[in-house]
Amino acid sequence: MTFTTPSSPYGIHRVIEPQGVLPQGAWKIDNTMEITDNEILIDVSALNIDAASFTQIKQEANGDEAKVAEIVKGIVEKRGKHHNPVTGSGGMLIGTILEIGSSLAGKIDLKVGDKIATLVSLSLTPLRIDEIVKIHMQKDQVDIKGKAILFETGLYAKLPDDIDEKMALAILDVAGAPAQTARLVKEGDTVVVIGGGGKSGTLCVYEAKKRAGKNGCVIGVSPFEKDCKRMQELGWADHTLQVDATNALALMEAVSKVTNGAMADLVINCVNIQNTEMGSILSTKQHGKIYFFSMATSFTAAALGAEGVGKDVEMIVGNGYATGHAEHSLALLRESEKLRQLFTELYV
Amino acid sequence: MTFTTPSSPYGIHRVIEPQGVLPQGAWKIDNTMEITDNEILIDVSALNIDAASFTQIKQEANGDEAKVAEIVKGIVEKRGKHHNPVTGSGGMLIGTILEIGSSLAGKIDLKVGDKIATLVSLSLTPLRIDEIVKIHMQKDQVDIKGKAILFETGLYAKLPDDIDEKMALAILDVAGAPAQTARLVKEGDTVVVIGGGGKSGTLCVYEAKKRAGKNGCVIGVSPFEKDCKRMQELGWADHTLQVDATNALALMEAVSKVTNGAMADLVINCVNIQNTEMGSILSTKQHGKIYFFSMATSFTAAALGAEGVGKDVEMIVGNGYATGHAEHSLALLRESEKLRQLFTELYV
Repeated sequence: MTFTTPSSPYGIHRVIEPQGVLPQGAWKIDNTMEITDNEILIDVSALNIDAASFTQIKQEANGDEAKVAEIVKGIVEKRGKHHNPVTGSGGMLIGTILEIGSSLAGKIDLKVGDKIATLVSLSLTPLRIDEIVKIHMQKDQVDIKGKAILFETGLYAKLPDDIDEKMALAILDVAGAPAQTARLVKEGDTVVVIGGGGKSGTLCVYEAKKRAGKNGCVIGVSPFEKDCKRMQELGWADHTLQVDATNALALMEAVSKVTNGAMADLVINCVNIQNTEMGSILSTKQHGKIYFFSMATSFTAAALGAEGVGKDVEMIVGNGYATGHAEHSLALLRESEKLRQLFTELYV
Repeated sequence: MTFTTPSSPYGIHRVIEPQGVLPQGAWKIDNTMEITDNEILIDVSALNIDAASFTQIKQEANGDEAKVAEIVKGIVEKRGKHHNPVTGSGGMLIGTILEIGSSLAGKIDLKVGDKIATLVSLSLTPLRIDEIVKIHMQKDQVDIKGKAILFETGLYAKLPDDIDEKMALAILDVAGAPAQTARLVKEGDTVVVIGGGGKSGTLCVYEAKKRAGKNGCVIGVSPFEKDCKRMQELGWADHTLQVDATNALALMEAVSKVTNGAMADLVINCVNIQNTEMGSILSTKQHGKIYFFSMATSFTAAALGAEGVGKDVEMIVGNGYATGHAEHSLALLRESEKLRQLFTELYV
């Protein structure tokens, strides 16, 4: 390997093309599995593909498992990372530490043999797949034999002994959502969670109710009867609205009805479909906030949409990282038996 | 006209296609110049086309004025509004109140004959152009004869007597930027303004210095020598960095140098070019904020970018509307003779 020392903490030394960008912006990165003195080598056991990405791959493969395997391998061969060229998204991985670069060893809380999940996107993680062991079509997970590199600035979480690793992988993938919810919701708030029946949405509804308390009001929204029923059974949402959030007016009217026209202090958008910006904006009260976790959010639709209807709302770009988010999300599984049961059913 | 009464405060009754969306999301709206009882009819004198949109139109026209006129008229004929199909953006207009719907008359602070600027985007405003009078190629402005409709929820500002109307139009177009800056900057903050030599950037640098005070530090960034020179002459920026913000590392290093590695509490992004998200993120300190005014911002690049480098920063979608933003921006011209001189040179 010909990387100069010291190598970049952001992994810029592994960018092949185009030059001058960071690994995430690169089309192709170098996945040579020899580490520099500030990199970490991981023996990978499973990938958790981003939901939008895995849905696209399954569609491209017409639901055929062998074809999914081929596409997954093809992406990594072409780009040196599992960075879906159609959706632009990645995912995360779990594995065991094989080797720690000399300038990091002893200075970080990792040792060879530790089991970790990476908390940075697969869209910037050097990866080599040697064998695809099993594809879990309903869980967005792929068991593999392979290796990966973590850069010096790369985030990770050590996997706990008391939580199944597949369940940990599933919840760590969306760890930013409940952590940001915990920061944003104040006691007594009215909170709308769009997509409240999905993986990140369920965690947001749970966390929002915990923070808003009995004087607060949490409203879960989903177009699907099944998801609404699940929200009702879990019991954390004060109201469940079966509404399609792409119908901005229908959503506004439904939220208006259950809030007596007061609307929401905070709207958390957790759906991975397009055209839900306006419904989010119209459901928020003047001077309220909107947190967009959806990777399908259009920046201009949000910016011009709020201005167009004279809504003075703060719209925040969902950041998958928040200090302590991994520990926070794992703690949720420990404190709520219902959440743990649900994640066991769906992801283990 | 066949609109049912009462008509929508959001103007949904004027959507022709596709049905079920708001006027901004519509491909085509009805620009019949007869008002319903909650609409306002305006005699339009000038359009201020959004900068990104006007740049695209000039390029498409190869700089030919007659061709620009043709494109502008063509957009309005096809869509019933000046909603650039390439950039997705609009602009604003100035004109005189011709008629006020019966359910609004006497209840709002407008009367027939008042001169106003609309503060909602042209991308949702029913417009008819009868004649193009003059195109101001360097000012993004088009003098016309024509009419427009303001919906009940539409925002407007009465034009003041003491400020030239073209100057008012220019500053009101970006009124959200200094208003949001005023909210975000605290005394002693280090603030980076990317694109600090442009129209909205200049206002943000001025406002940021005013709020950050002598213990604060305002850093203006532009790739152009001319813009940097102007920032230095105006004297509000403590540092001026001639750096291309698409080079994320170069920007990070330049900001690091002038802040002794502390980085910015707040980055305000005012450039209308792509791929400046990562530079913004790397220039911000942990737990800092980024305000994206740029309509070229990619939501996923911002969201995944911050996660990819483990930056716990709050990234806010620029909202062109903030309560009182019009009055706020006009007041800047009254309090700063230098700002007024600059806007007179550039836009009158």
